[in-house]
Amino acid sequence: MTNKNIKIMILGADGYLGVPLSVDLALKGFNLTLIDNYVKRKLSAKYLRQPLNKINKIETRVKQLEKINKNITFSNIDCRDSNRFDQIFKKVKPDIVVHFAEIPSAPYSMLGTDEGWNTLNNNLKSTYNLISSVKKHNKDCHIIKLGTMGEYGTPNIDIEEGWLDIHHRGRKDKFLYPRQGSSLYHMSKIMDTDLLWFNVRMHGLQVTDLMQGPVYGIHTSEFAKDNHLETSFAYDDIFGTVLNRFIVQAIANIPLTVYGSGSQIRGYINLKDTLQCINLAIQNPPGKDKLSIYNQFTEQFSVNELSKIVKNALKYINIDVKINHLDNPRVESEKHYYNADNKGMKKLGLKPTLLTKDTIIEIAEYVIKYKKRINKKIIQPKINWK
Amino acid sequence: MTNKNIKIMILGADGYLGVPLSVDLALKGFNLTLIDNYVKRKLSAKYLRQPLNKINKIETRVKQLEKINKNITFSNIDCRDSNRFDQIFKKVKPDIVVHFAEIPSAPYSMLGTDEGWNTLNNNLKSTYNLISSVKKHNKDCHIIKLGTMGEYGTPNIDIEEGWLDIHHRGRKDKFLYPRQGSSLYHMSKIMDTDLLWFNVRMHGLQVTDLMQGPVYGIHTSEFAKDNHLETSFAYDDIFGTVLNRFIVQAIANIPLTVYGSGSQIRGYINLKDTLQCINLAIQNPPGKDKLSIYNQFTEQFSVNELSKIVKNALKYINIDVKINHLDNPRVESEKHYYNADNKGMKKLGLKPTLLTKDTIIEIAEYVIKYKKRINKKIIQPKINWK
Repeated sequence: MTNKNIKIMILGADGYLGVPLSVDLALKGFNLTLIDNYVKRKLSAKYLRQPLNKINKIETRVKQLEKINKNITFSNIDCRDSNRFDQIFKKVKPDIVVHFAEIPSAPYSMLGTDEGWNTLNNNLKSTYNLISSVKKHNKDCHIIKLGTMGEYGTPNIDIEEGWLDIHHRGRKDKFLYPRQGSSLYHMSKIMDTDLLWFNVRMHGLQVTDLMQGPVYGIHTSEFAKDNHLETSFAYDDIFGTVLNRFIVQAIANIPLTVYGSGSQIRGYINLKDTLQCINLAIQNPPGKDKLSIYNQFTEQFSVNELSKIVKNALKYINIDVKINHLDNPRVESEKHYYNADNKGMKKLGLKPTLLTKDTIIEIAEYVIKYKKRINKKIIQPKINWK
Repeated sequence: MTNKNIKIMILGADGYLGVPLSVDLALKGFNLTLIDNYVKRKLSAKYLRQPLNKINKIETRVKQLEKINKNITFSNIDCRDSNRFDQIFKKVKPDIVVHFAEIPSAPYSMLGTDEGWNTLNNNLKSTYNLISSVKKHNKDCHIIKLGTMGEYGTPNIDIEEGWLDIHHRGRKDKFLYPRQGSSLYHMSKIMDTDLLWFNVRMHGLQVTDLMQGPVYGIHTSEFAKDNHLETSFAYDDIFGTVLNRFIVQAIANIPLTVYGSGSQIRGYINLKDTLQCINLAIQNPPGKDKLSIYNQFTEQFSVNELSKIVKNALKYINIDVKINHLDNPRVESEKHYYNADNKGMKKLGLKPTLLTKDTIIEIAEYVIKYKKRINKKIIQPKINWK
């Protein structure tokens, strides 16, 4: 089967990951249905957290993509709307759905009662509607769902890839690896995982669940650069991820804001590697009745290490980086054990893009182009977990 | 502090458990706020699954209860309505909330897409709103939440009370015991537990989570009998629990319907013991920052054993019981290991009411009073998990 006969639906095609994935899969010739309701743009506007760069609407981007691939359509649909979602799913009957249609911010989810519920409800309902349509119209559809490493929290034992064999009083069984989130956003992702696993067990669906670590960086395809198809770059306290924020702070000549002691360890991944991972997931369907879980990160760092890596790398382009420790606005363990497995994706063929000096300088040079647009007021954390 | 100074709010005060608990706590002199929106009555009516007996509306019942306790009010509120719920919570500022406000049926949740979402959304939103109001208005409030033994599923290892110490590669940590539900109803209860535990960790709430096994039986307080304050008795395929259904089938002279092989094992509890357990939970608050979990059942039986216990008991009142095995409408393991701990409530002082011949005959005699109202058409299972 050639790629043009493979129908892929991307839910959340306007997001940080959805935009470059759309370009990447368009270049590879897949038949694409892009879905988004611009909810993240609306939230960015509402909370005055605009990204560094301005990106075109999907309608415009689809026209650009049509230069290389005619089989691309966009539908402005809220995935919470079960009727409209089911209509498009029934019409397209995708072979694969990549599900990014989730509100992706831990701080947003902890802002207040409404924002917390909005996150839980949006994320769980989108996943529920997707599952319902798959069950009704194409049970063989491969669901590729973006989860988060944050679902595991910071347990005092090694983090395995999704599952854990438990021996207890002379007997044993295999379970989902224990989950314990540190924000309502993370809780919503845990509930998604539970719901997907339930439907794999009960209804034989096939699902790949990707536990992604904090993602950073830019998409560097030549086609995207030449055709104004770049993705958004958030650096604010709500939608920005830590490394992107640090680099923007460095370029804006303000200290990097390390929350608390900075000894919190996480597994990180470059946006380029996220695209590799989604492609590997597409090429490796788990098969009926199976949930495949991968830990999608390439390297573990503490926040302190991360800030020092940025500081050391940017010396080479004569930027002097200062580091500032803030009271931690989050409720999270700062001193904790962390050792997570990430062999699965490497086994499938992932070639990690490491967080080298060059990687950081490439991102910094990108940020420098937009230096005038940096809004220093939206970087300091304003949402307190307590 | 005397009981009249202790404010208890019962969410779901019109349910099978809510009704007798209201009577019991009224007799004990607590200051009570009863909340319900009659959703279960509405669902019973919609799906033509009326209970065996007709019970008064709460408004009428409150008038009866006022003979013994003046401090009882009822508010017809949908706990999903965050504004109205928050208003009443803010006004009352209860010391204790007993949270039964959940759609309680596994088959209902598996009936279709809408019913599944209705279950997930109703149960999670009620719990979310309760937590939000507790955080805002009285962080010391003791939340007593009804969960279900079904959250654990049927693992191949012993079921502990809520938690599991896990040793893995030379390290150890304590986690929520792994959960894996077998219906969307059970999944909603798992999500509730996750959300409560999250809020205990993050915001220092105090919660008692009661993992109850299938409940059976009747409330036998003299006051309730004399004042038309009995609770509803469901026996249908959606809202009836298995033992109550078996006894009704026996009285109606139709075979007991055992689903599948009947070797499914569960932990059961008499309604009288549920009341004991809630009272013990009231008397034993976990304290700030703590989630206490109890497995709320008294005896384990397979469905086959249960059907034989009914058959043998009813011989004594000259009822000849037939047993019929049906294709299992559920997706569940039939041959499985099951060994669940239930020491916690016994340690607090629970005196179990065992499933003796007399217990069954007492229920059977109650059912006989309503024999004419038995609707044989609503007993056979009509909802198939697949």
